[in-house]
Amino acid sequence: MNQTKWFLQSGPDHDIAISTRIRLARNITDYPFPSRMNDLQRQELNERIGKVLSTADTAPLSFTYFDMEQTDDAVRWSMVERHLVSPQFARYPEGRYLYLSEDERVSIMVGEEDHLRIQVLTAGLDPTEGLALAQKMDGIFDRAFRYAFDQQLGYLTECPTNLGTGLRASVMLHLPALRRNGSIARISSTVSKLGLTVRGAYGEGTDPAGDFYQLSNQITLGISEEEAVSNLSGLAGQIILQERKARQTEAENHLAVEDRTYRALGLLKSARLMSGDEFLKLSSALRMGLSLQIIDCDTLLTALNSLIFDVGAATLQKGAGRLLPEQERDTLRAQVIRERLESICRD
Amino acid sequence: MNQTKWFLQSGPDHDIAISTRIRLARNITDYPFPSRMNDLQRQELNERIGKVLSTADTAPLSFTYFDMEQTDDAVRWSMVERHLVSPQFARYPEGRYLYLSEDERVSIMVGEEDHLRIQVLTAGLDPTEGLALAQKMDGIFDRAFRYAFDQQLGYLTECPTNLGTGLRASVMLHLPALRRNGSIARISSTVSKLGLTVRGAYGEGTDPAGDFYQLSNQITLGISEEEAVSNLSGLAGQIILQERKARQTEAENHLAVEDRTYRALGLLKSARLMSGDEFLKLSSALRMGLSLQIIDCDTLLTALNSLIFDVGAATLQKGAGRLLPEQERDTLRAQVIRERLESICRD
Repeated sequence: MNQTKWFLQSGPDHDIAISTRIRLARNITDYPFPSRMNDLQRQELNERIGKVLSTADTAPLSFTYFDMEQTDDAVRWSMVERHLVSPQFARYPEGRYLYLSEDERVSIMVGEEDHLRIQVLTAGLDPTEGLALAQKMDGIFDRAFRYAFDQQLGYLTECPTNLGTGLRASVMLHLPALRRNGSIARISSTVSKLGLTVRGAYGEGTDPAGDFYQLSNQITLGISEEEAVSNLSGLAGQIILQERKARQTEAENHLAVEDRTYRALGLLKSARLMSGDEFLKLSSALRMGLSLQIIDCDTLLTALNSLIFDVGAATLQKGAGRLLPEQERDTLRAQVIRERLESICRD
Repeated sequence: MNQTKWFLQSGPDHDIAISTRIRLARNITDYPFPSRMNDLQRQELNERIGKVLSTADTAPLSFTYFDMEQTDDAVRWSMVERHLVSPQFARYPEGRYLYLSEDERVSIMVGEEDHLRIQVLTAGLDPTEGLALAQKMDGIFDRAFRYAFDQQLGYLTECPTNLGTGLRASVMLHLPALRRNGSIARISSTVSKLGLTVRGAYGEGTDPAGDFYQLSNQITLGISEEEAVSNLSGLAGQIILQERKARQTEAENHLAVEDRTYRALGLLKSARLMSGDEFLKLSSALRMGLSLQIIDCDTLLTALNSLIFDVGAATLQKGAGRLLPEQERDTLRAQVIRERLESICRD
């Protein structure tokens, strides 16, 4: 049974595509939308879903159950940092329930905006595999319940932007070279004409922390789930090619890229205080150096992929078991990073 | 025979006082000042000085002779970087000659602004030892020549600011904490009232590169050489105490200082491109951490003291045997620094 966390596995185009997320929104005809459900209905819905999951064949996945209202602040916000639940789901935990697979690949949110939100995370650019797993989970509930479905419109959802497939598919892309050569605005305008959107994954503004961007579909009507995923995949593939080309151009000044790579590694290995933003920025530089094989060390890339999810503010506090003031958090973050990087790829 | 370079030795208060320089200006009655000497006179003066030096007992010092006009650009400017000659002496090499001791402690410039400039460098704050050695060399020439000397005025020099003792004594101080807490202006105004001056040792403006400052005497009339040196020593001692106190105050935020120290070491050990200014800045942070024993490693301090003189632009080019464009210079500098730090104080 492979219960390794999904982000420790390596996926297609993983030098640029960090992760792919597939999310299906589903509602059940027996109840009103969650915003209009009462406490009893919420509990009943959750019990029925729990029963379906516990009796269904979900191997190799095994699920852990969270009553969000009974779950610590730090644990809930750590879930947000790890992209396991939406910020809304953590902020208003009353009457909300989560079923999370041990490898953190699948999370099933009950009582978010819709009755069911089935989310699958995969490493690299891999929406097909993600969709297949989401559809498998979807099938389990489809057989147990009567989904709110309209022949004309498709799946009915609380928010009209999800009507139809109820599918939101996104890829997190690492685009430092395209950001530096000023191509993001052009790409953003192109993809929006094709019904997709690009936005910074961390932080605000035009230069998102660590140069991580989310590419996601916007259209859910008049399109099949497979078509939507295939559009996303094709466009992501093109952006990945452009990023690779831009990296090659940057790499013509080999010394500058080499310098940036080793400095980033040097700082990650030595700093005693590190903010989350600086970690993203340094790991961006280091990732680029790894992808250009300036440093040839696969375990280092895996370590970075894992650290991103391990050094978020809430995740650190969850580990420490208490609220940490900023300096303590930055100290602990620096320490976790140092310990993780110390033993790997020594030169 | 101790021919170790002076800057590899450790001197008093060497955590803050990098080096002490003593310089005596002397002229000989037989000739006009250098600016009015002809070629023949310059050569004759040099021959006489060379003969005196070669027959005198200068042990353990042994001198190397340089006809500056026959000396490569890179070698001359490397001497400036290593504080062995004045910039003027390197810029206009015609009719100028240098006798340099192997340990680079003593340099005797012939045909600078005065006939003889006897300079002694010592590690740490050590003007007494420097003065003793300078006076010993001075005595050798005093016995061989008739110095231009006036009972009223003292030693006669080309520039009236040197009249009297002909002595310029200076200490290079590392004052990062006083610079950061804004005390330099106050100190500068105090010392100038006492007939001394403080100025940045590297770079221009109010924040000199690496926080290195030169404290030097200005008064040469109506004062003995010993008094001048004692004034300098006393005032330097006070500034050193103030800097130590300011460092202790800074160290109250132990984490911030520790972070800065290890980051500096991390960057010095990993960068592939490094400007001279950045080296000074990082070595400033590292020195402060060493003096606060955040890192306890004496060989590291010695390495920094040596690197300051080894990674100057001209010194690097001298080593490479050719002119280096900026990026090559920065690459070579980074390489020299990495190699020197790699093997010491591994954690």
